Amino acid sequence: VKRLAVLTSGGDAPGMNAAIRAVVRTATHQGIEVVGVRRGFSGLHRGNMAIIGARDVANTIQRGGTILLTARSHTWRTPEGRAKGAEYLREWGVDGLIVIGGDGSFHGGYYLQQEHGIPVIGVPGTIDNDLYGTDHTIGYFTAVETALDAVDKLRDTGASHERIFVIEVMGRHAGHIALEVAVAGGAEEVFIPEDPRPVDGVVATVQESLAKGKASSIIIVAEGFPGGAQGVADAIEAGTGLETRVSILGHIQRGGTPVSSDRVLASRLGEAAVYALMDGMRGVMVGRMNGEISYTPLEETWEKRKDVSRDLYRCAKTLSV
Amino acid sequence: VKRLAVLTSGGDAPGMNAAIRAVVRTATHQGIEVVGVRRGFSGLHRGNMAIIGARDVANTIQRGGTILLTARSHTWRTPEGRAKGAEYLREWGVDGLIVIGGDGSFHGGYYLQQEHGIPVIGVPGTIDNDLYGTDHTIGYFTAVETALDAVDKLRDTGASHERIFVIEVMGRHAGHIALEVAVAGGAEEVFIPEDPRPVDGVVATVQESLAKGKASSIIIVAEGFPGGAQGVADAIEAGTGLETRVSILGHIQRGGTPVSSDRVLASRLGEAAVYALMDGMRGVMVGRMNGEISYTPLEETWEKRKDVSRDLYRCAKTLSV
Amino acid sequence: VKRLAVLTSGGDAPGMNAAIRAVVRTATHQGIEVVGVRRGFSGLHRGNMAIIGARDVANTIQRGGTILLTARSHTWRTPEGRAKGAEYLREWGVDGLIVIGGDGSFHGGYYLQQEHGIPVIGVPGTIDNDLYGTDHTIGYFTAVETALDAVDKLRDTGASHERIFVIEVMGRHAGHIALEVAVAGGAEEVFIPEDPRPVDGVVATVQESLAKGKASSIIIVAEGFPGGAQGVADAIEAGTGLETRVSILGHIQRGGTPVSSDRVLASRLGEAAVYALMDGMRGVMVGRMNGEISYTPLEETWEKRKDVSRDLYRCAKTLSV
Amino acid sequence: VKRLAVLTSGGDAPGMNAAIRAVVRTATHQGIEVVGVRRGFSGLHRGNMAIIGARDVANTIQRGGTILLTARSHTWRTPEGRAKGAEYLREWGVDGLIVIGGDGSFHGGYYLQQEHGIPVIGVPGTIDNDLYGTDHTIGYFTAVETALDAVDKLRDTGASHERIFVIEVMGRHAGHIALEVAVAGGAEEVFIPEDPRPVDGVVATVQESLAKGKASSIIIVAEGFPGGAQGVADAIEAGTGLETRVSILGHIQRGGTPVSSDRVLASRLGEAAVYALMDGMRGVMVGRMNGEISYTPLEETWEKRKDVSRDLYRCAKTLSV
Repeated sequence: VKRLAVLTSGGDAPGMNAAIRAVVRTATHQGIEVVGVRRGFSGLHRGNMAIIGARDVANTIQRGGTILLTARSHTWRTPEGRAKGAEYLREWGVDGLIVIGGDGSFHGGYYLQQEHGIPVIGVPGTIDNDLYGTDHTIGYFTAVETALDAVDKLRDTGASHERIFVIEVMGRHAGHIALEVAVAGGAEEVFIPEDPRPVDGVVATVQESLAKGKASSIIIVAEGFPGGAQGVADAIEAGTGLETRVSILGHIQRGGTPVSSDRVLASRLGEAAVYALMDGMRGVMVGRMNGEISYTPLEETWEKRKDVSRDLYRCAKTLSV
Repeated sequence: VKRLAVLTSGGDAPGMNAAIRAVVRTATHQGIEVVGVRRGFSGLHRGNMAIIGARDVANTIQRGGTILLTARSHTWRTPEGRAKGAEYLREWGVDGLIVIGGDGSFHGGYYLQQEHGIPVIGVPGTIDNDLYGTDHTIGYFTAVETALDAVDKLRDTGASHERIFVIEVMGRHAGHIALEVAVAGGAEEVFIPEDPRPVDGVVATVQESLAKGKASSIIIVAEGFPGGAQGVADAIEAGTGLETRVSILGHIQRGGTPVSSDRVLASRLGEAAVYALMDGMRGVMVGRMNGEISYTPLEETWEKRKDVSRDLYRCAKTLSV
Repeated sequence: VKRLAVLTSGGDAPGMNAAIRAVVRTATHQGIEVVGVRRGFSGLHRGNMAIIGARDVANTIQRGGTILLTARSHTWRTPEGRAKGAEYLREWGVDGLIVIGGDGSFHGGYYLQQEHGIPVIGVPGTIDNDLYGTDHTIGYFTAVETALDAVDKLRDTGASHERIFVIEVMGRHAGHIALEVAVAGGAEEVFIPEDPRPVDGVVATVQESLAKGKASSIIIVAEGFPGGAQGVADAIEAGTGLETRVSILGHIQRGGTPVSSDRVLASRLGEAAVYALMDGMRGVMVGRMNGEISYTPLEETWEKRKDVSRDLYRCAKTLSV
Repeated sequence: VKRLAVLTSGGDAPGMNAAIRAVVRTATHQGIEVVGVRRGFSGLHRGNMAIIGARDVANTIQRGGTILLTARSHTWRTPEGRAKGAEYLREWGVDGLIVIGGDGSFHGGYYLQQEHGIPVIGVPGTIDNDLYGTDHTIGYFTAVETALDAVDKLRDTGASHERIFVIEVMGRHAGHIALEVAVAGGAEEVFIPEDPRPVDGVVATVQESLAKGKASSIIIVAEGFPGGAQGVADAIEAGTGLETRVSILGHIQRGGTPVSSDRVLASRLGEAAVYALMDGMRGVMVGRMNGEISYTPLEETWEKRKDVSRDLYRCAKTLSV
């Protein structure tokens, strides 16, 4: 490998810059040049790229967002779009492409490799933590911390007013953030897409809570749970007559200085991605499982499903007693 | 003054605990006993009160919310409700009442004093900063910091996606939070209730921004601006065709550990409220203007209007160049 | 098990309250009563204890420190002291004791069990992460985040002055915090007790950094590295003549609201400790290894040594290129 | 004014970037070009300068440190050094210089103006808040918040161990930070250079605290108080025999994302500095007093002394009851 390219794609996630930095620094350390592609696949089929060196990523490890920018690309979904991107990569003499993003981005990389033979390595960067093949994804830890900080704040005001708050956190298809935040935030109940049960059970939970002397309640709902936070709040109001507030945390969960766990994970995976290319791997996502670097075929990352921790789900219930 | 009562009322605000603590500690220092009323006026007409001492407020200065709880009270709006409350205060031998809250709460205190002769001192506690008679209200500084932190996070993701974010901050009748956050957050534009202009000017702002090379824009809108954030976003999408995200920060702005400025203001005003009662004052709100303690008749706090800083409003425009 | 006791001992760690809460709530859920012992073993041999219920631990999950207090005890090191403690436990009808702390505390529990037959379960609570038998200890994640926040701040001022900062973080016998913070903080070099090499190599590191165009450098040193931060700074000044600042972060690393990872770990382990007692286990520490609950004989926790991640140590070097 | 220069000098302070940004944006808005001088006066006499435009300061308002760098300069103290700097300014066609820094930096600017007739405007940027002519200096609010966050953390661990902590905060000649942090942190006692009293009174304070049932104590000491934190701790240990911990917060107080109050102050003062130059002012520092922009002759900023608030000093004592 003489020269590799790197891009970020899909929703941005805190720690993406740390991953880019790790790719660039590791490559530099190994005598490999790095081409940074701006705006993901959208920039790739437009040839929006430039050489980046070790100093260009100085002072970026602590920054949220992605210095390479990101975008959605409709053109990339066409064979013509991908052919154009492949042409640019060959023009620039690139021996392999590192894609930092989620499963949509990995699809984009997978087809590029299939159709044009360019080795692609995936690095899991998405706050939702919903990728098979890695215990955690880059950005997840920071998103949890941001959501938890909001929950702590809402608990202050909820406790002062003796109110019920139903808080919606990100996770379109997965309840990882919701579950972690529920346990860490001491929530009375949590609703996740992995367990799409009827919401009316929440009425009993709230009533038991009140009976036990808890004047306020915090309920966490993952974005992807059918009906969302509003559905749960409606059920509570209908069943108890108690005023219930809904708070949808939204995009703040994507931003912010990455916490240490995301920076370290991104550093490890960025490094591993370069080594994987050097070792001749292709079409795999690097991940970290049980503390060790793992390699998973790109297609498995979306075909297989990573479940939430059922132990933690049970624990959430036990501790809300 | 041998014994005074204190309550928090209306929306909770960070720093209310610091104010309660200052009231209790100053009173203790002066040999005065303090009765803490729980749940504001709602608790007062129910006799929900108890003696609190200097140790009871230990380790509370840094806590969000209010340890005395707060609530809205419909009963208090009736003469009968207030008569009941006055009876409890006399029963407890209370010589004066300190009300920590906003103008609605001051109304409640004002009528109590008018009808039953109980001296009332107001302490301005509301995040909106919309009380005449004080440069700042307790909770305002923390709410600004919380909103600003959210804006910084949204800027990360907005910049990465080259998107426009329209962010709604609290302020039903006042643009103080919005204006401060707009300047501190480097926003391209701000909409406040004090200047209810047509929103279509924002289209030109966004287009000029793009022309100047700014790929993303942050627009701040106060809750009380006609149409809110959604109205502004609709105008942008209609006028530019650009995808625009709306983020409504909501109740998180009420909670959280108070920042230093709120704790210090609360400490000063809680102390001043006790001294005011001792000096025979009644029916006034203690405030801080130009660094000095000020006293304003309760009715002026809602009859007169505190404007936002017009200099800052102009500055916001200049710096978004 | 009808009734169990719980105490915190040794240095406090963020998340200890979450562990206490989990013990109390799980026990309550299982119909077991909990006796809270105040001030660790020091309080135990004085009978400083009381029943605590599910509501007593409400609103504690987010608090730093330990509501049960902690202390060092010289008396506990004597058989007489432990006999006195055992007597109190029997008097209170306690069937088992849960000790939240580090290896010193586990020693204290171990001897109690050996000499008096009271089942003891350890829960790893120490910021240093230096206990064998668990991937992470409660408090470690928060300490890392606090130290990293300080490093980010020092980098701001270091970069502005183009200065070298040598930062000492906690870890008397272990470099876990130092290594994590070095990678996450983008440090140029890290010194840990696990690799007690000569410090003069740092001179070359700093000179290479300068040659590469890095105007400022951050060096992380674990407290337990021979000579500490001052030794490293002296070597740099002697070898390069460059002004070098030392910052010893100290006790702030122990405090603060626990981050999510510590709250969740504490919740899982507190729950597991109760179940372990119920399952008839004794003399073990509950831990989490590779995401699963693990059980390690107390004596192994101090006899065996948990190494730092050598992969991460290498990664730190690579990424400082 | 066709072209102006701006530099940051002395110790860096959070918000300096917001001030630079405001200078550049206001100048741009007024059709004035800006020359950025790197490394303060040290860079000025070396001609270390370049044109900076409105886009160059994008995304800097939230960053700690100073993008223009800062340094101490021995050469600038010589007439020859200043003559060299003046020559560069004339060469670049600069009509005026804006100096962001403390009183040492203002000295540097004052002599430049006296000797070479170049109009100089000062902008107060220093965390210590010790400049006459402005209620607050840029950086002060953030430093207070950082110190307070540390105090909150130390209180967690202090309370858990029932220990006394003596905490030293910045302020070589002034107790502003110490006093604010003492009130906001609920400290039992505060020592500031403005009141260099004997430390032995602290022994009685600590003993009274214990007698009142406070198990832990927080004492704040400004760096510039004779003997510092160590002197106070020694007195406590000598007088009470109680173990006392010292924590010196140090340089972390200089860094970090500026809080809103610093960003807004910096924005206002940066704007005002440009307008002052345009209005033909010279040799003054712009400040904010009682909410209004003020102008103070540079020499008064160091000749006159701004006292701490005596009311707040008294309040600190009352509330520690």
